[in-house]
Amino acid sequence: MSLVECVPNFSEGRRAEVIAALVEAITSAPIALLDVSSDPDHNRTVITFAGEPESVTDAMLRGARVAVERIDLEAHRGVHPRIGAVDVIPFVPLRDLSLHDCAQLARGFGQRLADELDIPVYLYEAAALRPQRVNLADVRRGGYELLKSEIGTPERQPDFGVARITSAGATAVGARDPLIAFNAYLSSTDVTIAQAIALAIRSSGGGLPYLQALGLLVDGRAQVSMNVIDYRKTSLAMIMARLREEAARHDVRITETELVGLIPQAALIGYALASLQLPQRTHDQVLERRLGAAIGDYREVMFE
Amino acid sequence: MSLVECVPNFSEGRRAEVIAALVEAITSAPIALLDVSSDPDHNRTVITFAGEPESVTDAMLRGARVAVERIDLEAHRGVHPRIGAVDVIPFVPLRDLSLHDCAQLARGFGQRLADELDIPVYLYEAAALRPQRVNLADVRRGGYELLKSEIGTPERQPDFGVARITSAGATAVGARDPLIAFNAYLSSTDVTIAQAIALAIRSSGGGLPYLQALGLLVDGRAQVSMNVIDYRKTSLAMIMARLREEAARHDVRITETELVGLIPQAALIGYALASLQLPQRTHDQVLERRLGAAIGDYREVMFE
Repeated sequence: MSLVECVPNFSEGRRAEVIAALVEAITSAPIALLDVSSDPDHNRTVITFAGEPESVTDAMLRGARVAVERIDLEAHRGVHPRIGAVDVIPFVPLRDLSLHDCAQLARGFGQRLADELDIPVYLYEAAALRPQRVNLADVRRGGYELLKSEIGTPERQPDFGVARITSAGATAVGARDPLIAFNAYLSSTDVTIAQAIALAIRSSGGGLPYLQALGLLVDGRAQVSMNVIDYRKTSLAMIMARLREEAARHDVRITETELVGLIPQAALIGYALASLQLPQRTHDQVLERRLGAAIGDYREVMFE
Repeated sequence: MSLVECVPNFSEGRRAEVIAALVEAITSAPIALLDVSSDPDHNRTVITFAGEPESVTDAMLRGARVAVERIDLEAHRGVHPRIGAVDVIPFVPLRDLSLHDCAQLARGFGQRLADELDIPVYLYEAAALRPQRVNLADVRRGGYELLKSEIGTPERQPDFGVARITSAGATAVGARDPLIAFNAYLSSTDVTIAQAIALAIRSSGGGLPYLQALGLLVDGRAQVSMNVIDYRKTSLAMIMARLREEAARHDVRITETELVGLIPQAALIGYALASLQLPQRTHDQVLERRLGAAIGDYREVMFE
């Protein structure tokens, strides 16, 4: 059974009845609902679900239909950059399919979304058809407002659908590997320290590859906010080591960290093995893994 | 479904045909075979298996029958202390049963082993009926040879079976929580440093509770060899911190570590969260855990 994850971002984080309708529409297909996170400040809801590819695209189309009916970008206010009611739809390979397969899935879904709901669709990351659309930030540049005035230009021509925007806006559809959103709080109220550390460790500043980082002030505390784009290549162990090194350079400590959303188990186990100085092959000595290989009744075994 | 693990230690680590016969006997019952580790130097084999209580005791009795028939303690040579052909049988609670339940299971099994195979049985750890038999080392004191001459004395009277020893020796049957066997190699060839560190960190030296430790010289390298008796109370994070502290005090480093046998997944995840400074409740954000709660088909999901 191949398993794909879908993490749509909807431009609604305040009206509980609309959020409930989105969840109801998505769960009316045979998928596993994993997480619903709404942020009223950003006025945004992220729903995470997984299942077999056909069920996942069906569920996503049902959710998108509700979003297009209920969310009006002309009336939407929020601090997050966004281009549409269903703003972003990434497909993530979990099991028995590749990133390439997910890119194909995203393209097929994008065509269907444009055809059935009359939304302009832009393909991004692994699903992108144009190199200048690989980066999601480029696709969303200027948000709904700028896209509305530029959609007629050749460079903003959608990949699917007609170049005409309604109050549901446009949608970015893509494929990517699992992403880890990981934040570290510093023993400081000085945001410039968090910004300096973020600049030193992130890929775009010449730091670690596959790492995005920003310095923020959150509830009066300096925070380094990170996206780990590929934890297999840039591990949590490498990131923690660099963070602690840079923090020491600025005479601050990491007081605590947090995960936003979900994390693949392998990222934590891999971190534990590296930090314990155990060989990575030790993964094979995990009791539950042996049990799983030996008997079928996982529900009983895995989750205490 | 309750799930119990059984980790019998057999006094045979050289004759492949005998080891194969032990494995065959055990796997003729409906259990999940998890690991077979034979050590020719110690002349000893440890078989790890799990299943429902009744299946596990059936499998264990079948294995014990083969051991009694095929292993002769009069001819056995090896460096490990041992009292019998089936030397030690611990039962370990994995799921939906308690350590107390495992102690009851061990006592019932011990009675059956003595009755059906005519072996003197000593109950140890959580299954012990006498306080001086809680510690396995006390039960095995002097090995087969001393026990043979002392079995007639009141203090070495078996808990089950008659006080008479054959060439299959006696068996210690017990119940314990999952144990982690974890070794750390030092950047030194000086065994006295490993011994000093072991003494400083282990429970019996006033160090960390629930931790046994010995300093050894293994392949010319100083090694701190540890048994973590209760990783929920003395975590791997606490142990690594103490180890590194003591190593620094002796001007040595930990070059690498190793696990002997299996480790419960929760011990590694718990370590990762602590070391990453993530709250322990983050365990709930593990993708596979959410998936597991949401859908039933674990085999597909959990093990890549």
